[in-house]
Amino acid sequence: MADKSKNILIIGAGTIGASWAALFLAFGHSVHIYDIRKDVQDFVHDELQLMLKTLLPELSDSRRNVLVGRVMYELRLEEAAANPTLSLIQDNGPENIEYKQTLWANIEKVAPKEATFISSTSTITATIQSKFMQDPTRLIVAHPFNPPHLLPLVEIVPGEHRDESRVEALMDFFKGCDREPVYVRKETEGFIGNRLAFLLLRESLHLVEQGVVSAEDIDKVVTSSLGIRWSIDGPFRSYHMGGGRGGLKHFLTHLGPAIGSVWKSAGTPDLSPELIETAANQTHEAYGSVKDEMFEQRDRLTREVLKMRDETRREHEELTHDTKPFIFCTSIKVREGGTSPESAYP
Amino acid sequence: MADKSKNILIIGAGTIGASWAALFLAFGHSVHIYDIRKDVQDFVHDELQLMLKTLLPELSDSRRNVLVGRVMYELRLEEAAANPTLSLIQDNGPENIEYKQTLWANIEKVAPKEATFISSTSTITATIQSKFMQDPTRLIVAHPFNPPHLLPLVEIVPGEHRDESRVEALMDFFKGCDREPVYVRKETEGFIGNRLAFLLLRESLHLVEQGVVSAEDIDKVVTSSLGIRWSIDGPFRSYHMGGGRGGLKHFLTHLGPAIGSVWKSAGTPDLSPELIETAANQTHEAYGSVKDEMFEQRDRLTREVLKMRDETRREHEELTHDTKPFIFCTSIKVREGGTSPESAYP
Repeated sequence: MADKSKNILIIGAGTIGASWAALFLAFGHSVHIYDIRKDVQDFVHDELQLMLKTLLPELSDSRRNVLVGRVMYELRLEEAAANPTLSLIQDNGPENIEYKQTLWANIEKVAPKEATFISSTSTITATIQSKFMQDPTRLIVAHPFNPPHLLPLVEIVPGEHRDESRVEALMDFFKGCDREPVYVRKETEGFIGNRLAFLLLRESLHLVEQGVVSAEDIDKVVTSSLGIRWSIDGPFRSYHMGGGRGGLKHFLTHLGPAIGSVWKSAGTPDLSPELIETAANQTHEAYGSVKDEMFEQRDRLTREVLKMRDETRREHEELTHDTKPFIFCTSIKVREGGTSPESAYP
Repeated sequence: MADKSKNILIIGAGTIGASWAALFLAFGHSVHIYDIRKDVQDFVHDELQLMLKTLLPELSDSRRNVLVGRVMYELRLEEAAANPTLSLIQDNGPENIEYKQTLWANIEKVAPKEATFISSTSTITATIQSKFMQDPTRLIVAHPFNPPHLLPLVEIVPGEHRDESRVEALMDFFKGCDREPVYVRKETEGFIGNRLAFLLLRESLHLVEQGVVSAEDIDKVVTSSLGIRWSIDGPFRSYHMGGGRGGLKHFLTHLGPAIGSVWKSAGTPDLSPELIETAANQTHEAYGSVKDEMFEQRDRLTREVLKMRDETRREHEELTHDTKPFIFCTSIKVREGGTSPESAYP
């Protein structure tokens, strides 16, 4: 399944929708886009040009134009969703419960039986979104990290009513797009990634509030230690190694008191206007206003860090065959839609 | 000051002490080592060979042997500390309050007046360690991230009695070793880095306890999203950009309710034997026992991610002169001890 070109309808083509489109195009899938905004074609065209340049820097201008030109823009949602060749219908619309519930109930009436519905939401669970569907197992949250065409994580969060084989097929689809899907087994506020990030933000704001360090210095700490470590190993593997021969068990037992004393002294600040003002001022002083070039730089750095990480992982994998293989996530091959999966360009 | 070769005494040469030694040697400083263990010379020799290979892969075997051969091993601590050419005395001894308090009170009696004392401790504050010193401002915590010769962060945490010019001179020294020192203005359990990491671990353990995801899946989430992002931008800069034109203020105001609901639903698990067992089992199942090659791989990946990040940062800096410069942290030049700072090899 992962190697077969699919027909995908993307609903809502802002930055996230365009980024999904770039990823799907790069892996040889056909992309239909529906969006109510008038300038959608111009916007998506420009975004795709930029994104595909970062994603596939080796692609020639003419090949990139061919890819971008393949996008089909739809004018009527119901008609587009009724296309019998569709495998996936993907929504990036507003984070509004009523919108989502109405959308899926209507889509379900016209979409082909086999099509799976996926949602980029970061806050509204599949259980809530699917409330008025006949078959709620057809809807699965597939929450990406921004930007989805670069960061490999996709959080797969089905609702209370789920069809395991549909979940598995969706995981396979994303693996085929060189993503790293993670199956989240219970619906949780913020799912996993945002949840962990918001809790790190909580303590960061607490430290800024207490005058321990500035916002800029928190960022320095994170980028010069934890971030680098966590781009390679997550917390469990890191602390497994931190425990030496005794592994995680030794680490948690040995450092339990120190860990517990940090937990006890952690703070939950009020997100008061004063605290927001303090943090925002310190951040603005450090970095100035948000400029376009900051995103371009971030995306280029992201791509390079990923590439380097994956290259060295692959090298290691070749050297040691007796260890558990890593998942490689940026070995992007562009496939021509409809041709054999082996054909790659340039 | 940052460019002048210093005479440094390292007390306690386990993995951390050897790693400091590798860093200091690479930047042309002279290193004296005192350690009670019998095999210290063999251990440090082997560690330095490995560390310098990762840190300076372009160095020839003979030049590396010259560097490693420069280390001076001391047999008597008081005599070593009385050396009038010492600028820094650095301790990596046991995390034991009595040991640290006795050590510094004794060292202070014999060490040259100008020498600054620094401690790698991750748990005992400078205020506590310096309790029996005549001049407690001489002792400053300089907490690294493991391994110090690779990860750029050094948390500079003076005690309640501090001498700002001494703190500043120490910051300059570490900048001269291509580290990224951060001045922590209040002594806080776990300082900053471990503190943030332990709070992310808290929620990670909570999610594992609740069966939302496995330890391995938490790691996947972190390495395929947050870690990559945080190796480039810390939480404040990331969310500043996440707020678009409105910056961090817009982000925190707009997403306040979602952030607050995650904070409210966060858990503080007991570090019970059962939870430790569950997390340790899942981690062991995912990665097996801790093996030497895991550290070698981690260090090589760390070095490569840092190199790539710094290269692309530098490239960006050359392109845009109107933005705030980044700090470069791995542009390592090896300097011959005692020669002009410009002379670098190979």
